[in-house]
Amino acid sequence: MNTGFVVFGGTANPRLADAVTREMGVATGAAEVERFPDGELTVRLEESVRGKEVFIVQSTCPPVNDHLMELLAFADAARRSAAGRITAVVPYFGYARADRRNQRREPITASLVAALMQAAGIAHVVTVDLHTPQIEGFFSIPVDTLSAVGALVDDLRGRLDPATVVVSPDAGRVKLATEYALELDAPLAVLHKRRQSGSETEVTQLVGEVEGRPCLLVDDIISTGGTLVQSVRALQAAGATEFRVAATHGLLLRDALGRLAAEGVAEVLVTDTVPLPPASEGSPVRVATVAPLVAGVIRKLLYGTPPAR
Amino acid sequence: MNTGFVVFGGTANPRLADAVTREMGVATGAAEVERFPDGELTVRLEESVRGKEVFIVQSTCPPVNDHLMELLAFADAARRSAAGRITAVVPYFGYARADRRNQRREPITASLVAALMQAAGIAHVVTVDLHTPQIEGFFSIPVDTLSAVGALVDDLRGRLDPATVVVSPDAGRVKLATEYALELDAPLAVLHKRRQSGSETEVTQLVGEVEGRPCLLVDDIISTGGTLVQSVRALQAAGATEFRVAATHGLLLRDALGRLAAEGVAEVLVTDTVPLPPASEGSPVRVATVAPLVAGVIRKLLYGTPPAR
Amino acid sequence: MNTGFVVFGGTANPRLADAVTREMGVATGAAEVERFPDGELTVRLEESVRGKEVFIVQSTCPPVNDHLMELLAFADAARRSAAGRITAVVPYFGYARADRRNQRREPITASLVAALMQAAGIAHVVTVDLHTPQIEGFFSIPVDTLSAVGALVDDLRGRLDPATVVVSPDAGRVKLATEYALELDAPLAVLHKRRQSGSETEVTQLVGEVEGRPCLLVDDIISTGGTLVQSVRALQAAGATEFRVAATHGLLLRDALGRLAAEGVAEVLVTDTVPLPPASEGSPVRVATVAPLVAGVIRKLLYGTPPAR
Amino acid sequence: MNTGFVVFGGTANPRLADAVTREMGVATGAAEVERFPDGELTVRLEESVRGKEVFIVQSTCPPVNDHLMELLAFADAARRSAAGRITAVVPYFGYARADRRNQRREPITASLVAALMQAAGIAHVVTVDLHTPQIEGFFSIPVDTLSAVGALVDDLRGRLDPATVVVSPDAGRVKLATEYALELDAPLAVLHKRRQSGSETEVTQLVGEVEGRPCLLVDDIISTGGTLVQSVRALQAAGATEFRVAATHGLLLRDALGRLAAEGVAEVLVTDTVPLPPASEGSPVRVATVAPLVAGVIRKLLYGTPPAR
Amino acid sequence: MNTGFVVFGGTANPRLADAVTREMGVATGAAEVERFPDGELTVRLEESVRGKEVFIVQSTCPPVNDHLMELLAFADAARRSAAGRITAVVPYFGYARADRRNQRREPITASLVAALMQAAGIAHVVTVDLHTPQIEGFFSIPVDTLSAVGALVDDLRGRLDPATVVVSPDAGRVKLATEYALELDAPLAVLHKRRQSGSETEVTQLVGEVEGRPCLLVDDIISTGGTLVQSVRALQAAGATEFRVAATHGLLLRDALGRLAAEGVAEVLVTDTVPLPPASEGSPVRVATVAPLVAGVIRKLLYGTPPAR
Amino acid sequence: MNTGFVVFGGTANPRLADAVTREMGVATGAAEVERFPDGELTVRLEESVRGKEVFIVQSTCPPVNDHLMELLAFADAARRSAAGRITAVVPYFGYARADRRNQRREPITASLVAALMQAAGIAHVVTVDLHTPQIEGFFSIPVDTLSAVGALVDDLRGRLDPATVVVSPDAGRVKLATEYALELDAPLAVLHKRRQSGSETEVTQLVGEVEGRPCLLVDDIISTGGTLVQSVRALQAAGATEFRVAATHGLLLRDALGRLAAEGVAEVLVTDTVPLPPASEGSPVRVATVAPLVAGVIRKLLYGTPPAR
Repeated sequence: MNTGFVVFGGTANPRLADAVTREMGVATGAAEVERFPDGELTVRLEESVRGKEVFIVQSTCPPVNDHLMELLAFADAARRSAAGRITAVVPYFGYARADRRNQRREPITASLVAALMQAAGIAHVVTVDLHTPQIEGFFSIPVDTLSAVGALVDDLRGRLDPATVVVSPDAGRVKLATEYALELDAPLAVLHKRRQSGSETEVTQLVGEVEGRPCLLVDDIISTGGTLVQSVRALQAAGATEFRVAATHGLLLRDALGRLAAEGVAEVLVTDTVPLPPASEGSPVRVATVAPLVAGVIRKLLYGTPPAR
Repeated sequence: MNTGFVVFGGTANPRLADAVTREMGVATGAAEVERFPDGELTVRLEESVRGKEVFIVQSTCPPVNDHLMELLAFADAARRSAAGRITAVVPYFGYARADRRNQRREPITASLVAALMQAAGIAHVVTVDLHTPQIEGFFSIPVDTLSAVGALVDDLRGRLDPATVVVSPDAGRVKLATEYALELDAPLAVLHKRRQSGSETEVTQLVGEVEGRPCLLVDDIISTGGTLVQSVRALQAAGATEFRVAATHGLLLRDALGRLAAEGVAEVLVTDTVPLPPASEGSPVRVATVAPLVAGVIRKLLYGTPPAR
Repeated sequence: MNTGFVVFGGTANPRLADAVTREMGVATGAAEVERFPDGELTVRLEESVRGKEVFIVQSTCPPVNDHLMELLAFADAARRSAAGRITAVVPYFGYARADRRNQRREPITASLVAALMQAAGIAHVVTVDLHTPQIEGFFSIPVDTLSAVGALVDDLRGRLDPATVVVSPDAGRVKLATEYALELDAPLAVLHKRRQSGSETEVTQLVGEVEGRPCLLVDDIISTGGTLVQSVRALQAAGATEFRVAATHGLLLRDALGRLAAEGVAEVLVTDTVPLPPASEGSPVRVATVAPLVAGVIRKLLYGTPPAR
Repeated sequence: MNTGFVVFGGTANPRLADAVTREMGVATGAAEVERFPDGELTVRLEESVRGKEVFIVQSTCPPVNDHLMELLAFADAARRSAAGRITAVVPYFGYARADRRNQRREPITASLVAALMQAAGIAHVVTVDLHTPQIEGFFSIPVDTLSAVGALVDDLRGRLDPATVVVSPDAGRVKLATEYALELDAPLAVLHKRRQSGSETEVTQLVGEVEGRPCLLVDDIISTGGTLVQSVRALQAAGATEFRVAATHGLLLRDALGRLAAEGVAEVLVTDTVPLPPASEGSPVRVATVAPLVAGVIRKLLYGTPPAR
Repeated sequence: MNTGFVVFGGTANPRLADAVTREMGVATGAAEVERFPDGELTVRLEESVRGKEVFIVQSTCPPVNDHLMELLAFADAARRSAAGRITAVVPYFGYARADRRNQRREPITASLVAALMQAAGIAHVVTVDLHTPQIEGFFSIPVDTLSAVGALVDDLRGRLDPATVVVSPDAGRVKLATEYALELDAPLAVLHKRRQSGSETEVTQLVGEVEGRPCLLVDDIISTGGTLVQSVRALQAAGATEFRVAATHGLLLRDALGRLAAEGVAEVLVTDTVPLPPASEGSPVRVATVAPLVAGVIRKLLYGTPPAR
Repeated sequence: MNTGFVVFGGTANPRLADAVTREMGVATGAAEVERFPDGELTVRLEESVRGKEVFIVQSTCPPVNDHLMELLAFADAARRSAAGRITAVVPYFGYARADRRNQRREPITASLVAALMQAAGIAHVVTVDLHTPQIEGFFSIPVDTLSAVGALVDDLRGRLDPATVVVSPDAGRVKLATEYALELDAPLAVLHKRRQSGSETEVTQLVGEVEGRPCLLVDDIISTGGTLVQSVRALQAAGATEFRVAATHGLLLRDALGRLAAEGVAEVLVTDTVPLPPASEGSPVRVATVAPLVAGVIRKLLYGTPPAR
């Protein structure tokens, strides 16, 4: 009988939450997150959610455990306040790379996170460019994975040297690179790491041709940028001439921007799924926004037209 | 068919985990917790747990969200490695004070934490002096709540002035204070806070008689010590002459020890459920250990004799 | 697509159910509860509930197991008849005092009851003055706990001797007593029971000052009134001069009213969450109604304005 | 690591529980069931169950809701005390006839009961002659349904007139009657009720031949005996000469024995799954025991040889 | 917020799905079922289901496992696409006869199927003439079981010889036969199978009188018709003169129609819950439709008036 | 208390089940799978499983839905017979390629299958070379994924031309190809499909160098071999000289072997996770066994030493 909806923004990326609600022409829901001296946090929803659709915009970017727990507490507060359907909008899904066991006795933390979200009463998840599409299957609830590749390619198109080669920095990103290459009508090269047999040293090998050509390295997440630095060096060794990087999620930890600039990377293009690190001014970073994409999917969840994909 | 057990220690309080396994005459299980630059963590169990009873000793003390997530990851790793029964030994249970909603639209985070633990495959919980006994009912799995009051009273007995009054610092701790008063054969006084009607100022009121007598203030958790400082002042105003504090869990945040000393508190007695803050030397703190208590309950869980309570 | 709602009343307190629907200006839903010679019961909903919000008003007062099973059967019937959201309105929540284990190997029956309600398809609970607020955390569904203290205080205000002391009959009710004391701007006294060390005899001790003053004893539930009788005697011994009792839930078993009157209790004020015992006429009992409170929360659940608390 | 087992007996049929443990050569587990003045009950297990297999012998005979709640409380107590596998031994399964909806908006209480048992932590059920075998499918846990027909037939064999006809008192018991008829090498007759078309009066019709022959009416449960009385009259009208009744569960409510005797029933043979009503001496009742059957299945659950069926 | 509904038809009986939507005056939802060379199948919903009520019409007739898996895949696709309530309309419910264990260590496949349906996100089931009504209790979700007996009887009425006897082909169908007998105002006869004591040969025995009379054999499912053939022979031996068969679900496997015709069965009346076998032309089969019945219940689920039963 | 284990083999690949039990030195568990004329199946366990560890060896190869349903029925039978831990040994995991949604409104059937297995009571899964490692995360129970790459490489080693290039037939298999390349100390090439921008035609592009060299194409599953045929043609066009194929799971549908031979493939190396198609004699197929691998992991699950990986 109750109707309506509320879009709350957690503390992980309040600027994005506000951009989303601005796109939608509504106000961000009133809520307060309190942190106690012992690090415990609580959430107070300051408007009624009874029977309403509740959206909680919260990237689980660093500090990941705090942002995840805040999201779960938001959901628990909404559930106990008799909210209707609770949708977690998690533009950056932390722990996504923990999607399988690398060694025998490890957690699959992305699957654990899916279980925790469902245990907290979350009934729908919206996210952007999951590290692997299989993560959707960790959930038994609907997951809408939006692709920011279109927005990133739109930003790149017309600005790139036509000779540019799209480069996958490792074997796991070949599909993503194929997608960029197709959209940009560019050739593909693949880097992959291998240990020399009988040795522990890992070397980066190149499959494809980059000599004398500019390169666009693509990835889903830039954490400290370490892999990209190695990739740039391998491409330089193979004669590549210019370097750009495009990635959906720019965590950009530990002065990643500075280190990439130092390797001669001319541009780092990311989206606003996570906030830029402080003091990134002056660095070659460029930000495309996912706010219209996210606002669009929320509108479609509310009014029933399916989002483009 | 498999048998045996492993006791792992998380990173929250490795000293206690080692004290527990030393009490039991076994080695702490080999495991590694790795933290990545983005704050994500993973766990690697370095010995087989197939079919074994697994105990994970991990207080969820500050940083509470990291320690909780580590515990859940430990459990997920053990579950996926085909462990037998997984028991979380959580001497200090973080978020325990979030055991009800103070205002309408809040989470009940302690209940949420119980749900998360069960979602991660934990089948049994051992803890010490829960903030309220009702928290056991948040779980559908067995919870063994050990009491450290006996250990604390043992340490106090014989050292206290016989005229000492046991003081509950607020209405919620009267039962705990009654327990101490009975064990120490001492009278009881109760502080309670109330707002003056028509005003927002909260004043601390005393019920009972403390004039000219030494006081033992008792609590379950000392966080920043703010309530205790107010309590000491109220008791001083009522003519009390000496102050000691006993509490199970000494978080002792934000120089709590220094502030209590400054109010004239002669001794702060806590247990080792959480590690002491660095640089607590020179302060009037005294630590009783719960390691034998915890080791005892694990032994009894393994060999079937029920723990004393 | 279906809309609408139905408010059914179980057999525990049909008068309250009717008072609630009368407040709401609707008819109580048609249903029949049949009891067979062997004590089994069944429920027949005599109007369609497909897609409707269903409210079942049923206190789980004595005979508690029959009333609980009837509530669960109501919920099962509604669920199997494709009801929308099923809300149990349980003004008196039986087994609420079984909210923790007093000894080691006991059930936590209030938590069990929460699990049973959820297993039967109940999606929301409305109740009045739970014995402890932590019981909300036994549920993963929303629980609205209404407070009847306001209604009771409204009834008392102006009628009480200004010298009245509010008395908590044991350590567990100090918070409730504080609430009354604040609302009535009255001082507080606390009774607590303790065993003499080395003895099995339990004595009631008084903290606070009552000599020559009238007392208002407050509690959430009056069962047989045994504790209150002891409390009155202890207060008499301490020189108190007049006795009134206020409590939300008046089970008033085993001639509790007669026994309290015999101790000189001038008035027993309760609400109508449970029906009065037969033959309570002539006794000093007075009843405030919770019907407007309950009707209010149902209206707000239906139409979305949050209930005052 | 813990081993062993405990067989507890609830208050529904302590004599049977003791007969079972005597058969097994062990003592019934020590436990106390306390009933409070308000009808709430609690259970205290007075011996350790940590890691042990726990069997709770409790028929859910009248008062069915009390006996069911007691069983659930037993299970909750065992679960919270870290019992191993909890098996409910429910020789008489109350609400078994509520195994489907007769009208549209009713509960299926037997299925609800199955859900409640599983919600309380019961992991295995042992029962005797379920009203319909489909009830096993209400559970996702193992259900062992023992048949008492063998024991009842053994008691009858040799004592019956060779001309005896086995009679099913209604359409739903034809399969059971077929089983008796086969075992006793006797012919079969079927009574069934039907309303005259266009009328509300239900008449009992006979299919088969009974003239001049003694009849054995068989059923699973005798409640008040009303159907049997009608059946005897219909058989008398058809010329039958003598009447015996055999049934597994003899609730024998409301002087069923007296009424059957008054109709000329020479013998009512039941088992001890439920206790005989008081003052059944002098009546034509005869009791066969299921204790060896129940003891046998428990032994087999413990030691792994499957029970005969 | 989203509204509306979609009725999809699986590949088991597309003609019935279309008849149902035609009755409702809507188009069958657009969806494609793809089968890969390895026998795996997938489903693509070709219209939005966000927030809509989704009905999936899919009998689980042979090949039963393929049709069941298709239904579950449909549900999973709808759930992951954020459908509102998902209702499985399963006119013929495969595995319904596997509703209990005949021997000790068997599955109860009908109960397993219920669990699988619920695990796939199905929230409501509509079916026709379940083999036993207890199957409803295998579910914790609403099950609407429609009866096709009315439609079949309507078709028969006026066409039957007034001397016709309704015959139950075994002990388990006596209730169904009673229903037909009452509706048709006809007498009843019962066949039942029994083994001779001391022998393995099963013989069919007749209870009731059929000599010189036409017989209507009734059943819920005709699989290969084997039992019916035996029944006809037993009735012929007892002097019956004419044979008709009425059953809700006509699987009619292995030339059942031909074999029944060869025994002299004049008519086999079934419904369209399952498609007729190919090449049934020329056989004495007659089909009544359940489409109005199914369309009616869907309309009532959508608009809230309860279906007649 | 019960101990022991049983290894059952389903009908999908009885030869492998027998090879596994032979390796273990035990007999395959006695069980019968019955298929009815209507395609329904049932399972009868012919030896006791009470309290035992149960292993069910059943690849879900074509007909995949029948083999899956048989596995679930096996599990249900074991669960209802009070088995201890039930482990599904699924060497070939059908629907593994349905691990994500390719289009918006599809099921994630591999995740659905995981849910169904858990709903049927399966507590542990053992499988071989899952299509993607993320599938482990679809389960909340332990999954042991064995790798057959070692066995396949062992078979190849020494027989391959040292100039051989390892070829990944598409972007998704690059990681697998890297593994082979490392083990065989061979270079890598990658084929990937892309649509020409503005066109619907998909072309296969080669990254890497194969001219004049023999190629080893590697994959996890060979279904009809269509992709491999295209790959061989693309490699031929690039000047490669010889072709071998290695894959774990050889479904080899629709004369895949004949078609690969016709393209000049000299050898197709697979394992026995699925049975060879009939009439594969004379074709260039070669089979390595996984029986020791599977037997090893079962032994380790029983006796606690972790399997090598």
